[in-house]
Amino acid sequence: MDIANALIEALLQRGVRRVYGVPGDYVLGLFDRFEQSPIEMICTAGEEGAGFAADAHARLHGLGVAVVTYGVGALKLLNPVAGAYAERSPVLVISGAPGVRESDGHALLHHSIRASDTQQRFFNEVCAETARLDSGRTAASEIIKVLAAMERESRPGYLELPRDCLTRPLPWPLPPVANAAPAPEPAPLHLQRGEELLSWLRSRQRPVVLAGIELHRFGLQADLLQLLEREGWPFATSLSAKSLLNERHPLCLGLYEGAAGPEKVREQVEGSDGLLILGMPLQDLDTGIFTMHLEAEHVVRVEMAEGLRWSQGDLDSLDPVALLQVWKEAPSASAGSRALAARAQSGPAPFEPLPGVAITVRRLINALNQRINADTVVVADPGDALFAAADLRLPEASDFLACGYWASLGFAIPASIGAWGGSSNPKVKPLVLLGDGSFLMSANELATLARYHIPALVVVLDNGGYGTERPMLDGPFNDVQPVDHIALAYAYGFKAAQRVQFEEDLALALTTMLANEDGPTLISVELKQGDVSDVLRNLTAALAKRIQPEAKS
Amino acid sequence: MDIANALIEALLQRGVRRVYGVPGDYVLGLFDRFEQSPIEMICTAGEEGAGFAADAHARLHGLGVAVVTYGVGALKLLNPVAGAYAERSPVLVISGAPGVRESDGHALLHHSIRASDTQQRFFNEVCAETARLDSGRTAASEIIKVLAAMERESRPGYLELPRDCLTRPLPWPLPPVANAAPAPEPAPLHLQRGEELLSWLRSRQRPVVLAGIELHRFGLQADLLQLLEREGWPFATSLSAKSLLNERHPLCLGLYEGAAGPEKVREQVEGSDGLLILGMPLQDLDTGIFTMHLEAEHVVRVEMAEGLRWSQGDLDSLDPVALLQVWKEAPSASAGSRALAARAQSGPAPFEPLPGVAITVRRLINALNQRINADTVVVADPGDALFAAADLRLPEASDFLACGYWASLGFAIPASIGAWGGSSNPKVKPLVLLGDGSFLMSANELATLARYHIPALVVVLDNGGYGTERPMLDGPFNDVQPVDHIALAYAYGFKAAQRVQFEEDLALALTTMLANEDGPTLISVELKQGDVSDVLRNLTAALAKRIQPEAKS
Repeated sequence: MDIANALIEALLQRGVRRVYGVPGDYVLGLFDRFEQSPIEMICTAGEEGAGFAADAHARLHGLGVAVVTYGVGALKLLNPVAGAYAERSPVLVISGAPGVRESDGHALLHHSIRASDTQQRFFNEVCAETARLDSGRTAASEIIKVLAAMERESRPGYLELPRDCLTRPLPWPLPPVANAAPAPEPAPLHLQRGEELLSWLRSRQRPVVLAGIELHRFGLQADLLQLLEREGWPFATSLSAKSLLNERHPLCLGLYEGAAGPEKVREQVEGSDGLLILGMPLQDLDTGIFTMHLEAEHVVRVEMAEGLRWSQGDLDSLDPVALLQVWKEAPSASAGSRALAARAQSGPAPFEPLPGVAITVRRLINALNQRINADTVVVADPGDALFAAADLRLPEASDFLACGYWASLGFAIPASIGAWGGSSNPKVKPLVLLGDGSFLMSANELATLARYHIPALVVVLDNGGYGTERPMLDGPFNDVQPVDHIALAYAYGFKAAQRVQFEEDLALALTTMLANEDGPTLISVELKQGDVSDVLRNLTAALAKRIQPEAKS
Repeated sequence: MDIANALIEALLQRGVRRVYGVPGDYVLGLFDRFEQSPIEMICTAGEEGAGFAADAHARLHGLGVAVVTYGVGALKLLNPVAGAYAERSPVLVISGAPGVRESDGHALLHHSIRASDTQQRFFNEVCAETARLDSGRTAASEIIKVLAAMERESRPGYLELPRDCLTRPLPWPLPPVANAAPAPEPAPLHLQRGEELLSWLRSRQRPVVLAGIELHRFGLQADLLQLLEREGWPFATSLSAKSLLNERHPLCLGLYEGAAGPEKVREQVEGSDGLLILGMPLQDLDTGIFTMHLEAEHVVRVEMAEGLRWSQGDLDSLDPVALLQVWKEAPSASAGSRALAARAQSGPAPFEPLPGVAITVRRLINALNQRINADTVVVADPGDALFAAADLRLPEASDFLACGYWASLGFAIPASIGAWGGSSNPKVKPLVLLGDGSFLMSANELATLARYHIPALVVVLDNGGYGTERPMLDGPFNDVQPVDHIALAYAYGFKAAQRVQFEEDLALALTTMLANEDGPTLISVELKQGDVSDVLRNLTAALAKRIQPEAKS
């Protein structure tokens, strides 16, 4: 057992079957080891693509891995890994590095940044834990330390492996790391506070649970749903936590986005006299740029990052994991358990294409709504692709992946690689939504979709530039070079791609593309400049004011 | 005068006429200001592209500027900026940031990394100086401080501008920053040591100057050439400093690359009894992976980073700037000034295409050698494109840009944007050389070449994968998805592109493409797998040994 084996063995024990990366001379030996292992190496076009793929994989599977070379490879991961840190996605970065013996004597080696620890210090800022594997004696414990911290915090980790250390022997066999320790008994203090909170919510007339992204990251969805059904509490989710729970469930109110979202959801959330904001850090893009109107005495916030704040006193030791653990074991309400709300959830409205009518964002979403099924994973790029996707109504088993806080353009195409790679469903079909600006940033990863025959459908919302920015402040800088998306897809190896402008063409293209079994397909949708989603229209005033506060006030 | 005006004014005073960037909501107001200024904003496909473009611009012009949004924009610049730090290119990063008033109360704002200063601390590691422009009172001095440090060290700088601070007024007019202070008189200690060194070199039988990249970055080429001609000393350069001086000059020995380069140059450099290694940090890729054989008593090293080391004692206070200043003013040798070496430099051998013969790397370089003229700027991507380019013979006014130490694949296409944007020659014609792996990483910036009608010729050396890595350790990870380069170029807006396999097709394509006046063109050259440059062939053994030291020993 040497360091490279130990690392691969640890990943196998954690159920990792695919990793993402780009080779380079400092990591070539490790690529060769992966090649000889049961783990499949998915080689992306660039390192940023590997990072976003690993992020999506991590969100679905609980651990995603990007393998890159030193310096020029690892630094390109800082953007996706910072996003994974912010959005609590456990991405493991494995970076090759100059050999320990090469670095002796302070030789100037290519790809070296500044000091020998500069790269690791960068990753310290955006990781739960980092380590350098240069000793057989400590490698196993370092690997376990990093993986454990990643699991505990649901955040990225970093391992640096000098290229001459792969074969350093380990003095003892690698301890198993697969089984996480069982959850500890709730502390008496947690127990008391959790019960207090339960009584309070049960005593409310109009309780609502607003459930956020942390519940997804810590795998609490099933516990939450069971509880909501037991108590009969309606729930809403945020944009970045979309599809956390079945959006067609009778208790589902929909997506809450402050003033930017549907008025009906807003009334029910803001009108609640017992609102539990659970695992949802209140960030700008989830709250319609802070346009929520809540009354402190009606609200309790429970989250990982900041503990619990409550008008009746701060209970800062409670977090969503502990809260749900206490509640799960609490007895059902002695009398008068609330009946399930009778709100019948209709399925998505049927899409009847109107001949000769140009497609709008709203109608595109209508059309897609009909085609989504349990095999679909929606992957939405930031900008209006994401805002528009808010109106998709996802069934139970369908996942939704978005970069809803970090908001890095170019996320969706590479993330769809990881959505395929990390899904436990062999029939998974990623549905990628992105704008033409994002497409220009990330089109090279179409090559990866083609190379591995990934059955993604890529839908480009082409409004001729950065459509999210135009309503804020427009200028030639919001234009992008017009690109032939169809020719591009074919050049990268796609077998089917189509440009559509009218509703009947869209309907036909969706049927054709979704029936395609032979790798990825693409539809480029021609939209009018200025045609935006309802959410973006509602946000525009708030967004523009932040760009030019002096000019407007 | 407000902060945005002051910033633009400072750039104008420094002669900046083009900047590179990608908009985003935290920087949109500043883009609008640039739009209203005499400075042209070149909008690239992605932020990494803006970074490499600014790097190339900086190498030609002395200052290059990349303007990006916070977080998702700025972090994508860390790779190119780390390269600019390592290779001493003065790239100024201007990053938008959340408004000061928005950040009050620690609101969670999209694109935020961790702490509010995390991004600036990242850039502290790879910049000569950084500053945050959030006060009208200090903005002017902060801008000057950063620009001055960049000029002094020839390294990147960073300015962070919160989006609500653009209009903060400055209490005094911006002091002029255009004229750098005149060089100070050499310190007496420098004077003495410089003269000592001059006498020593004059006393040698076979003096040689090995001139490196720092001479380019500190603009010392003219001084150096004058001195070499006065003393009659022959010179060689390194790969990363290629074309520092006219490669067709009678005193030019060629490119020295240790055991990887031409034997004749090696003999002359290593056989010298007075070798001055000037402004050339001894890094692996410039030295044939440290395969130079030098005798300490015959060698003097003078460089910015590490001072001077000499067998007769360390003169650590001397650097190339000070040395050339002393030597410039030194009297000519009293007697027997060495006659100019009579080495007649032949021009490049004519390229006569052989019909039906498949193109090789060596013949491709032959063919290109004939087409290079004073308007050419060669931009070579790392890997075999760079190693092969070592054999180009550049005339006096021709520039050569490469990422010769940082070695980030994907450098060349975006760098050609900056080579065009930063050149003082309106007829400049970038010649881009890159492999198909690099092409896959950076093809999106073809859109930028097309958008701004940049007359670059992009030559793809297509050997079906990462050809530099195959000789080290091969596997499926060195394959890349086969891509139709020609269709891709057209899809991005090129008007001319051609695939060639045989010599006569190449000759014809070069004639057609170089005659094209209407924007960029592309030639994709089909090469056999395993056909590599002489340099790479010579390096292979040394490189492979570092990948698998145990396996081979």
